[in-house]
Amino acid sequence: MYIHAVSHYLPTEIVGNEHFTRLNGLSSDWIIERTGIRERRKASPGENTNTMTVEVVRRLMPKADLSTVDLIVGATYTPYDTIVSLAHEAQHFLGIADIPVVSISTACSSLLNAIEVVEGYFALNKASRALVIVSEHNTAYNNDKDTVSGHLWGDGAAALLITKERQQESDFSIKALLTGGAAHTPKATTGVMLKPVDGGVSMPFGRDVFINACQYMPKASLQVLERCGLTLADVDYVLPHQANLRISRNVMNTLGLPEEKLISNIQMYGNTGCAGCAIALSEQWDTFQKGQHIVITVFGGGYSYGAMLIEA
Amino acid sequence: MYIHAVSHYLPTEIVGNEHFTRLNGLSSDWIIERTGIRERRKASPGENTNTMTVEVVRRLMPKADLSTVDLIVGATYTPYDTIVSLAHEAQHFLGIADIPVVSISTACSSLLNAIEVVEGYFALNKASRALVIVSEHNTAYNNDKDTVSGHLWGDGAAALLITKERQQESDFSIKALLTGGAAHTPKATTGVMLKPVDGGVSMPFGRDVFINACQYMPKASLQVLERCGLTLADVDYVLPHQANLRISRNVMNTLGLPEEKLISNIQMYGNTGCAGCAIALSEQWDTFQKGQHIVITVFGGGYSYGAMLIEA
Repeated sequence: MYIHAVSHYLPTEIVGNEHFTRLNGLSSDWIIERTGIRERRKASPGENTNTMTVEVVRRLMPKADLSTVDLIVGATYTPYDTIVSLAHEAQHFLGIADIPVVSISTACSSLLNAIEVVEGYFALNKASRALVIVSEHNTAYNNDKDTVSGHLWGDGAAALLITKERQQESDFSIKALLTGGAAHTPKATTGVMLKPVDGGVSMPFGRDVFINACQYMPKASLQVLERCGLTLADVDYVLPHQANLRISRNVMNTLGLPEEKLISNIQMYGNTGCAGCAIALSEQWDTFQKGQHIVITVFGGGYSYGAMLIEA
Repeated sequence: MYIHAVSHYLPTEIVGNEHFTRLNGLSSDWIIERTGIRERRKASPGENTNTMTVEVVRRLMPKADLSTVDLIVGATYTPYDTIVSLAHEAQHFLGIADIPVVSISTACSSLLNAIEVVEGYFALNKASRALVIVSEHNTAYNNDKDTVSGHLWGDGAAALLITKERQQESDFSIKALLTGGAAHTPKATTGVMLKPVDGGVSMPFGRDVFINACQYMPKASLQVLERCGLTLADVDYVLPHQANLRISRNVMNTLGLPEEKLISNIQMYGNTGCAGCAIALSEQWDTFQKGQHIVITVFGGGYSYGAMLIEA
């Protein structure tokens, strides 16, 4: 299984920390110290997860032949439309008839769950060229004035073409992939929530989310390495879910890896949900050297987690 | 792949057609003539897709050992929580650690998409005992006063245990399964929609939905039969998506099958979204004879469709 190409989109409107200082007195230094976030992007009134989907698919077109896509898997926890899902919007835009199309949610972990669903279709020989789209419109469901988590969220999207067989030398190989739910833990179903008709995003137990994220991401990373017979010494970069720079640094510390190997874009975009890692992968795509190993590891509400080892 | 057991739940509150007569003047006869619906169930204020999930899982427990479930796939387009998805709620209730857990949406078609995702995990040897839950809380997102579609919707849920290997003689065998998106058709992304932050459910092009449902369900049914080397003569029952009794009868007519072979519960429950077919399967489970063939075929917004042939 290979990543042939990736694209991303970020809305143009920048929301700096001073917006939250004005709203509720949180200083920029306080936000940066606790989260690493300096600014985030906000979708314009006409934008949503489905329009951002069309935009990332459009941006993927020059990089990959999408006319032969035979599976579309979308992911979001901030849906514009739960019936016309973002995967259906992508199919509509591409005009490809009668292929499997599905949208999923495992909160911020969905990128890896989406790719695992693709892996299943490939194993069944029901598909061989899959379009995966991750798109989040956090600001549609967020209360800016919430002093606990209002300042964390940003909007953005990304798209990947995943193929069963290698298309060209520059494709990235997916060496191992695992996902898991951790909803058995006591506060998993109350740590962070998004109830569309009952208040939007809330994070009553941010500390519990933090602790579990810091435990699960290193653990899952080690598991995918072990499955490939590799060790931490083989890792060139770690790309963790972009939730909080302190979580990312904690993950690196736990793994005993230096911060130079950390990929992070949360400083500029905030927590862009399940799109965060894919946006960062797209931004960094051309900087990776042939043969380098990148571990992408995710953690999200629910709780949910996963890790994927890719080789450039 | 086998269906080992199935359970369902319907809220106790019954909403008769007279409710809509009072609200907006639609007569019960008019509603029955156009949709077949006589009454539908409405979740109580404390209920939602996640509580109904727990209830159907609880009801499945006496029928199946759920302690060894190694995959949970939930489905809904009317989510209570998009972060703590209903699949995570089920994991939390069961207390099973670290298994793949994901929730999906392909509108009313999701039952078959969920089972196809399970099929993929089975093919990967990443799971062998999957809990599938379909749960809809249409009334949370519906405008009762909408004269176009306000009277169509009902609430309900169902759960299935799907296993890779046969567990016992009475298990139903899944002989073939296909799903597809039909979002390439012109009105697919505007025919029926659910925008959580922009008005809930709406159906501006009900006739287009009707026409496509009547075309896709027979077509998909024939495809799964063909894949098994069977013909319409081998079909004992057809269980179409419970959207509208006129659509169901149209599907039977197109297939040239008598109405005695149609399974329908829409008269009592309205359109319960992706839960409808699974609720009907659960209700009829004990009435099927060994060796009988049942075609489940679905169509939903987006658009999306699918068919599955099972043998009792």
